[in-house]
Amino acid sequence: MAGEKHAPVTVIGLGAMGAALAEAFIRTGHPTTVWNRSPAKAARLMEKGAVHEAAVEAAVRASPLIVTCLTTYDVTRRCLGPAVEALAGRTLVTLNSGTPQGAREMAGWAAEHGAAFLDGAVMSVPEAVGAPDTLLLYGGDDATFGDHAAALRALGGDTVHLGAEPDSAALYDSALGGILLPTLLGFLQGVALITARGRPASSLAPYAAAWLEKIGAILPALAEEVDTGEYGDPASSVGIFHDGIESLVRDSASEEGASIDVAWLAPVQDLLRRAIADGHRDQSISVLVELLRRPGRTA
Amino acid sequence: MAGEKHAPVTVIGLGAMGAALAEAFIRTGHPTTVWNRSPAKAARLMEKGAVHEAAVEAAVRASPLIVTCLTTYDVTRRCLGPAVEALAGRTLVTLNSGTPQGAREMAGWAAEHGAAFLDGAVMSVPEAVGAPDTLLLYGGDDATFGDHAAALRALGGDTVHLGAEPDSAALYDSALGGILLPTLLGFLQGVALITARGRPASSLAPYAAAWLEKIGAILPALAEEVDTGEYGDPASSVGIFHDGIESLVRDSASEEGASIDVAWLAPVQDLLRRAIADGHRDQSISVLVELLRRPGRTA
Ligand SMILES: NC(=O)c1ccc[n+]([C@@H]2O[C@H](COP(=O)([O-])OP(=O)(O)OC[C@H]3O[C@@H](n4cnc5c(N)ncnc54)[C@H](OP(=O)(O)O)[C@@H]3O)[C@@H](O)[C@H]2O)c1
Ligand SMILES: NC(=O)c1ccc[n+]([C@@H]2O[C@H](COP(=O)([O-])OP(=O)(O)OC[C@H]3O[C@@H](n4cnc5c(N)ncnc54)[C@H](OP(=O)(O)O)[C@@H]3O)[C@@H](O)[C@H]2O)c1
Repeated sequence: MAGEKHAPVTVIGLGAMGAALAEAFIRTGHPTTVWNRSPAKAARLMEKGAVHEAAVEAAVRASPLIVTCLTTYDVTRRCLGPAVEALAGRTLVTLNSGTPQGAREMAGWAAEHGAAFLDGAVMSVPEAVGAPDTLLLYGGDDATFGDHAAALRALGGDTVHLGAEPDSAALYDSALGGILLPTLLGFLQGVALITARGRPASSLAPYAAAWLEKIGAILPALAEEVDTGEYGDPASSVGIFHDGIESLVRDSASEEGASIDVAWLAPVQDLLRRAIADGHRDQSISVLVELLRRPGRTA
Repeated sequence: MAGEKHAPVTVIGLGAMGAALAEAFIRTGHPTTVWNRSPAKAARLMEKGAVHEAAVEAAVRASPLIVTCLTTYDVTRRCLGPAVEALAGRTLVTLNSGTPQGAREMAGWAAEHGAAFLDGAVMSVPEAVGAPDTLLLYGGDDATFGDHAAALRALGGDTVHLGAEPDSAALYDSALGGILLPTLLGFLQGVALITARGRPASSLAPYAAAWLEKIGAILPALAEEVDTGEYGDPASSVGIFHDGIESLVRDSASEEGASIDVAWLAPVQDLLRRAIADGHRDQSISVLVELLRRPGRTA
């Protein structure tokens, strides 16, 4: 295609993230058409050069590549409803969050309407869209990704195609998303501990951030253990964590422990006890993946 | 003191971490005396210039600054038992892991024997000891820290005095230590998810590491919310996490969800439900600290 770097693009959904996507396309020189349920949100983008279409069908017809960023797959199908005929022969890229199953259903819907399809996940905040190190994950047909990779790279320099399965991005997004809450709870428990001693939470944050980087650095080694099934040469053993959590829970009866609620750790303690009972004491903590794979199992 | 940068130092305990500490002192030019229960571990350090004493009392008498790195405070007191008279007028710095209560007991013991005292925590692995960005936290008397800060900086450029309370380092160490296991479990759950789909764990690790850095970057804002008690302008609300975990647990009855055990998240789900019931739906996730502070409370 002539002028491939400036292929026309349509962005459907101009919430916090969708608006950032549209802006990144405009900034890199893509003729950009936008549509949103509440048309007022298009005004700022029109000032920057976007074309606004009031009818979703006209927006879809304006470009070979349609990028949606609505809250869910359901909402996406509902918004595109009036434009299904226009989708045939075009490429639809969904960038909302959702489950792998949701992504597969969305892929089926796109195929039904004759559209090529990719599902993606923006692994960052709207402010970071378009930056060289911003990560976006995609799943879907290789050729479709190849056709649009140049345009999609406008959204983030770290643009990765995880494979032909259309739910790949949702799969990795789910896997990563599940890390956030436990990590934040661990941090907030630490905050509860130090604030009970009159120290501000802000005094813990920089150390905690540095600590998370350190934890990140050990993940490849843990992953390697899981992939090889060799848990025998641990940097951190099940036993160390087991003993640590037993003493943490015991200490919660002590002076400063009494100030925090460790009840949320009870099943983690149970998991470690089961791992010990199964003979994993001297193995790497990564062996817990074997227990996490066995739902419904009780001690 | 003349030649302050090269004050003599004694290191008691030559395990993985203690040996690294002794090496860092030697490398920066401190006359270094070492002692270990198993004397064989001193050999490598003697080659590098350390003086080995077979008797712990002679080791203590060799330097005004005694750094211990044994497994626990109990073991530390046991090892120093034959040297208590020699401790009077010297400074003892304990660098083992332990609870704040353990650090306070250790401080009492040191005072009893007339030693100045600091308790520290090495926030890194032995390989990183001595590096400019390696973080060590200390608690204890200001003047004592001031007297020995130059020598202690040999162990890591990021050497921080948290305050006069001798258990400060153990407090922050506990707060940070509690982040590790939940974070690793979150990661391993993600690993269980993707490996059930035939993807290697190693394919998740780099994204997870980058993700942890991103999480680290939001901690200061969460800490600020806790410190000000203003939870009303959330980047991530209780409601979003509540709905996310409800759908995760619901999905665990689905095709790929069935491959992982989300039982360890049940009390987290309960915590979020309580937060919603308490009217926190539209507040920041950091408000959970208020619930973590209320042990034994049930819905
Ligand atoms: N924001 C982030 O940091 C971030 C990061 C990664 C991923 N994501 C994902 O990106 C997606 C969008 O997030 P966002 O932050 O942009 O959300 P947002 O600011 O709340 O925007 C939501 C968008 O969906 C539209 N919408 C919602 N319900 C609708 C309906 N029933 N019919 C038609 N349109 C509807 C909204 O239209 P109106 O303007 O008319 O309401 C708006 O365009 C979500 O799946 C989110 O998980 C967001
Ligand atoms: N390694 C790390 O990555 C790391 C990081 C941060 C903090 N730490 C903390 O540093 C401290 C030491 O850790 P490490 O990794 O050096 O452990 P290590 O390699 O197992 O060494 C343990 C040390 O304690 C001594 N010891 C143990 N039991 C003893 C006893 N009953 N009597 C006399 N000496 C005894 C050992 O002497 P022998 O040689 O005679 O057995 C050895 O000197 C721990 O509190 C640990 O939590 C370690």
